[in-house]
Formats: sequence, C-alpha cells, structure tokens
Amino acid sequence: MSRFWSNIVSELTPYVPGEQPKLPGLIKLNTNENPYGPSPQVLAAISAAANEQLRLYPDPSGSALKQTLADYHGLSTAQVFVGNGSDEVLALAFMALLKHEAPLLFPDISYSFYPVYCKLYGIDYRTVPLDETMHIRPQDYSGACGAIIFPNPNAPTGIGLLLDGVEAMLRAHPDAVVVVDEAYVDFGAESAASLVERYPNLLVVQTLSKSRSLAGLRVGFALGHPDLIEALERVKNSFNSYPLDRLALAGAAASFEDEAYFQQTRAAVIASREQLTQELEGLGFEVLPSQANFVFARHDAHDAAQLAAALRARSIIVRHFTAPRISQYLRISIGTGQECAALVQALRAILPQADN
Amino acid sequence: MSRFWSNIVSELTPYVPGEQPKLPGLIKLNTNENPYGPSPQVLAAISAAANEQLRLYPDPSGSALKQTLADYHGLSTAQVFVGNGSDEVLALAFMALLKHEAPLLFPDISYSFYPVYCKLYGIDYRTVPLDETMHIRPQDYSGACGAIIFPNPNAPTGIGLLLDGVEAMLRAHPDAVVVVDEAYVDFGAESAASLVERYPNLLVVQTLSKSRSLAGLRVGFALGHPDLIEALERVKNSFNSYPLDRLALAGAAASFEDEAYFQQTRAAVIASREQLTQELEGLGFEVLPSQANFVFARHDAHDAAQLAAALRARSIIVRHFTAPRISQYLRISIGTGQECAALVQALRAILPQADN
Repeated sequence: MSRFWSNIVSELTPYVPGEQPKLPGLIKLNTNENPYGPSPQVLAAISAAANEQLRLYPDPSGSALKQTLADYHGLSTAQVFVGNGSDEVLALAFMALLKHEAPLLFPDISYSFYPVYCKLYGIDYRTVPLDETMHIRPQDYSGACGAIIFPNPNAPTGIGLLLDGVEAMLRAHPDAVVVVDEAYVDFGAESAASLVERYPNLLVVQTLSKSRSLAGLRVGFALGHPDLIEALERVKNSFNSYPLDRLALAGAAASFEDEAYFQQTRAAVIASREQLTQELEGLGFEVLPSQANFVFARHDAHDAAQLAAALRARSIIVRHFTAPRISQYLRISIGTGQECAALVQALRAILPQADN
Repeated sequence: MSRFWSNIVSELTPYVPGEQPKLPGLIKLNTNENPYGPSPQVLAAISAAANEQLRLYPDPSGSALKQTLADYHGLSTAQVFVGNGSDEVLALAFMALLKHEAPLLFPDISYSFYPVYCKLYGIDYRTVPLDETMHIRPQDYSGACGAIIFPNPNAPTGIGLLLDGVEAMLRAHPDAVVVVDEAYVDFGAESAASLVERYPNLLVVQTLSKSRSLAGLRVGFALGHPDLIEALERVKNSFNSYPLDRLALAGAAASFEDEAYFQQTRAAVIASREQLTQELEGLGFEVLPSQANFVFARHDAHDAAQLAAALRARSIIVRHFTAPRISQYLRISIGTGQECAALVQALRAILPQADN
C-alpha cells in the first residue's frame, strides 16, 4: 500500500480473467472463446476502416452501431447502449443503476466480476443460493432489494432460466432494476430482449465476444427503457467519451449483417456441446445441462484441480474455480469438433491414471 | 430523473466532446485531430491483425505494447500503464490516485473533463487561477492539497510549462501525486517523462490521439513509479479487464516503430501553427503562444461566438467555450496547410462584415 493511493485501492480484489497463454499448439478451452473466427464480412469491414480516417475521433455515441442493434432487436436507438465489451457495460450499470440503499441481489454461484464491481463502487449486496440442482429459483429473489442481476444462462453453470422466471422477477420488483446478463444467450437460452418494451425495470446486457467470435474486439451492449439507457450514457460520458474505436464500431455493425454465418457457427458450437456432453457422461462425468458455449462438469472419482493439472500437462487448458460448492467442477469451453475430440482422448488417458 | 437511477446519476454533468459532424466538405478544426493520417505502418499492422484471432481475448495487461512504450521512454514495463485513450487513463487516475481528504488542485482554465471526473468520484477540488498572461504559476500550487493535475501544454490555452516549473511542484508536494497530462506535449513542450525515475509522486499521461494521428483508435498511457502504476492496474482490473482491443494494441505498437513519420508529421503541424499564428496576428488576433496542435486566439473587435458562427456558415468549425475568462477566445486546431489557408481566407471575408 502506497501513501499515494486513494482509500479504495487497497481494498480492491481485482477480477482475474482466464489466462491468455501464448504457447503454440495449446488447446485453449478456458475462457469461453468461440472456436470459429468472426465472419469474413467483419474482417473486411475492419480492414476497410483501417484508413487515414483513424486520425479522427469515433462517433462518441456510436449512433450507426446503435441503429444496427436497434433494427436487429426491433427497438429504437434510445433503447440501446453500446460499450467496450459487456464488462464495461456491466461496470457502468453497477454504478448507474445497481447502487441503492437496499442490497443488490445475485446468485451465490455466478459471474465472479459482480462482487468486484460492488467493492469498486461500495455497493451493498446479498447472494442468493442456487437450488440443489444449481438452478436459479425466481421465488428466492422475493425479498426487499435495491436491484437484481444474474447471468442467463448462468455462468459458470451454463444453466438457463426460462422467460417465465425472468418475468416473475420483473413483476415482483417493479421498482428495482433487473439486469439480465446474456453473454451466452445465443447458444440456446431465451433472450429477455423481447420483454424490453413491457418492463421499464429490465436491462438486457449482451456481448459480441462469444456467439459473434469477437472477444478480441471489445464490444458489448445493453437494451432497456430509455431512462435506463440515459443513466448509462450519463455515467459513460462522465468517464470516457469514446470507449469504442472506429474499427470496433465498423466490425461490430458488420457482424449483424451476416446472419447466415452467425446461425451456422452457433449451431456448430451447440452440436459440439451436445456431443461433448454425451462423451463426458460416457466417461463418468456429471455434466450440468448447458445452454452456453461451455459445459460445467464434475467426476465423482476424480479431483477437479488434479484433472485440470493433468489436462494442462497435455497442453489442454480448462478453467477451475476454487469457490465453495463448485470446487469439484471444471468449466470447459466448447472448441472445434477436433479440439473436443482431443479433450476426450486426453481424459480417457488421464482417468485410469488418476484411479491409481 | 428516474426512480431506477443511483443517486450519483442525476448529479452528473457529463463532459461534452467536440462535435463530430458528418457533413461532406467540412473543414474540421474543432477537436484537435491531426490533419495527417496515421503512419502507413500502423494501418498495415491493423489490417494484419484483422484476422480470425479476433475470436480470442486480447492480452489483458497489454504486455507487448507496454514493452514498446517502456523501450521508447527508457523505462521498465512496471512503470507503464495502458488504457482506452488518455481519457480512460485519467478517469482511472482520478479514482485511484487523486481522491484524498485534502482537495485536488488544477488550473481554473484547463481540460474541462477534470471537474466531471471529480463529480463522478466525489473528489473535492479547488481551481487555481492562471496568471494574467494565462500561464500556470507553480508557486500558486504551494498550499495543502491531496494531489495536483494539469495539462502540459495546458488546454485550451496551448501554453507549456517548463520542466523547472513541473519539478518545483513535484518537490513542493512529495506526499501528493502530481499528474502531468501531456496530451499535446509532442508539439513542442517538454515532457516530464524524463523525471519519472526521480519522482515517485509523478504520473505522466500521454495519448496517441494527437501527435500520432490515432484519435480513432483510442489508446493512451501513463508513465510513473510502479506503485502508481499498480494502483491504476487494480482499479482497471476491477472495472474492465480488456479495454484495449487486439487492433488497438497492434496499431499502437506499430506507431512507435515509425519514428520518421512521427517526426515528419509533427514538424509539419508545428510549421503550420507558426504560419497560422502569424497570419492570425496579421488579421488583428491576439494569439497565445502555443506549444500544442491548436491555437487559442481572440480579436478585440469581434465577438468569439459570432466569429465561430460565421466560420461555421462557411463550413469551417472551430471550438468556442463559454466559460469565464475564455469566452472571447476561439480554439482552432491546426489543419493541413490548405485548411489553414482556407480558414485565413474565410476570416478575411468575415472580419469586415462583422464590423458592420
């Protein structure tokens, strides 16, 4: 701790993202990236934007991208916010919409960045346990609260909540903002985007990092009532006028213009997930029912940390969390068919050894 | 004000960036962009990075870019922080290093984002008047304070402070962080980067938006003692793990590998500034001595707001601030030689008319 630090700095416990090792030949199944590259139209749009106009600031409000997103979701631009990845959108939402007298509620097993944001902004929160099958139970969120946030599908479980459940929460708390963090929604869950017109307390957050294969471009967005969007804009414009560069704005918009590629790659990921789930079950794993681009699995006879280490020794990295309730699970991103096959082959080799 | 907003939201007065109109044929001298495009090497590096690897997250710590910047400035990577434009770097510095019991000091005429950050983070501040010639006078900052920040050269005046003056402030406040915001330093002022090794309380902030013609790419950085850098990292990693996308990281690093282009374009801007200054003085303007890529000028016989409107009617936009002490000035970005000539020609046409 330095005498130059603000009081807040020493109290922070920063989020630790999954590692990004640069080893060649690694099979990287630890950060839920898409195994398929972005649409060729996206790459072309970025290359076209790599011109002398980079000397000029981007449009601070990202109007063209907002229009694309509004059209795609059947909303108006006043119902759309864009930011530097859904992490930045979430960070701004925590400050603008989730800090109230009453505590914020989120699941005990959930995105581990939520408590980090709470610490950063001094937000009081209470975690709500998932049920014994690791599902979110909407009725458990019926107490007094300042706001609610949860991922749908949840991370790292991969389990989705049906829209009925989302609506139950929205109706139970008409005076509290409910943020549905849909980073993984395109891999099989139901988006609450269709509810935005009916619930002024709903904010839907999505990202282009997963289903649109653009983790490296840093674009996320939120959909909600214009009052909620305005709150995000006010905080964003008091922090950084232009978080999206010209290349990100161009590439993101192009992604929504190649619907065929989007449908084809997400279907491929879903098919690989279903096949990998069966194969893991065949190896004795219990696999939670995933609607995301990863599976969350445990093996009764094998310690998760040891399995992760054994996979790493074979150049395959998966993510292992040490948090309570989930320390015996591995979170495995869905790779290409070939990468999934390599994982299964490695596990076949490891499991008997671990029995010794 | 909505019932869903956090208390802070309604109190904010967001920063208003210079407008980015999309009218064809406009001569845009309002946001201090570089009239020359970025280095061809930068554009090539970005195009090369527009590949399928965009499916992967960027390096969250931006290690390669940090190494480039450390090498360029003769420092270690532990003395370098990178962020999404210098605005984001400043925002994080305000939260991590400038919030203390005693007030933050900055000039009364200065970057208008500073009071916005203070409001966002609840930072007490006191402004210190520039002297009657619009210069920062270091001895005026001798009172008790929590920290100090000022642009060098200052904006919107363009006037630089010599390193002796910077050192005087650093020595007068060994227990307070002094942030030197060097957005425009490459156009003729003295950088405090050379003082980083000697003053643990110094943070130097720079941007690639101006002298490196990359306003559209959103890259800024800070140089300082590892303790100060660590504070920025802790807050950044509690806010957004990856504010710099893969394209920005690649393009930024490439910019520092084309020193010849950098020297050539900044020399061209400086030469245009000197010529424009003479021509404006010939038209009866008082022009403050600028070390930036803009001039700050007033005309005794003509109202600044009217002049700005008259220029706009001729498709030339400059920036006019309504703040006290500077409401009779125009801030004019240095364009190409041709753009500067068009500005002078327009002013020649306007000035007699305004006399009527």
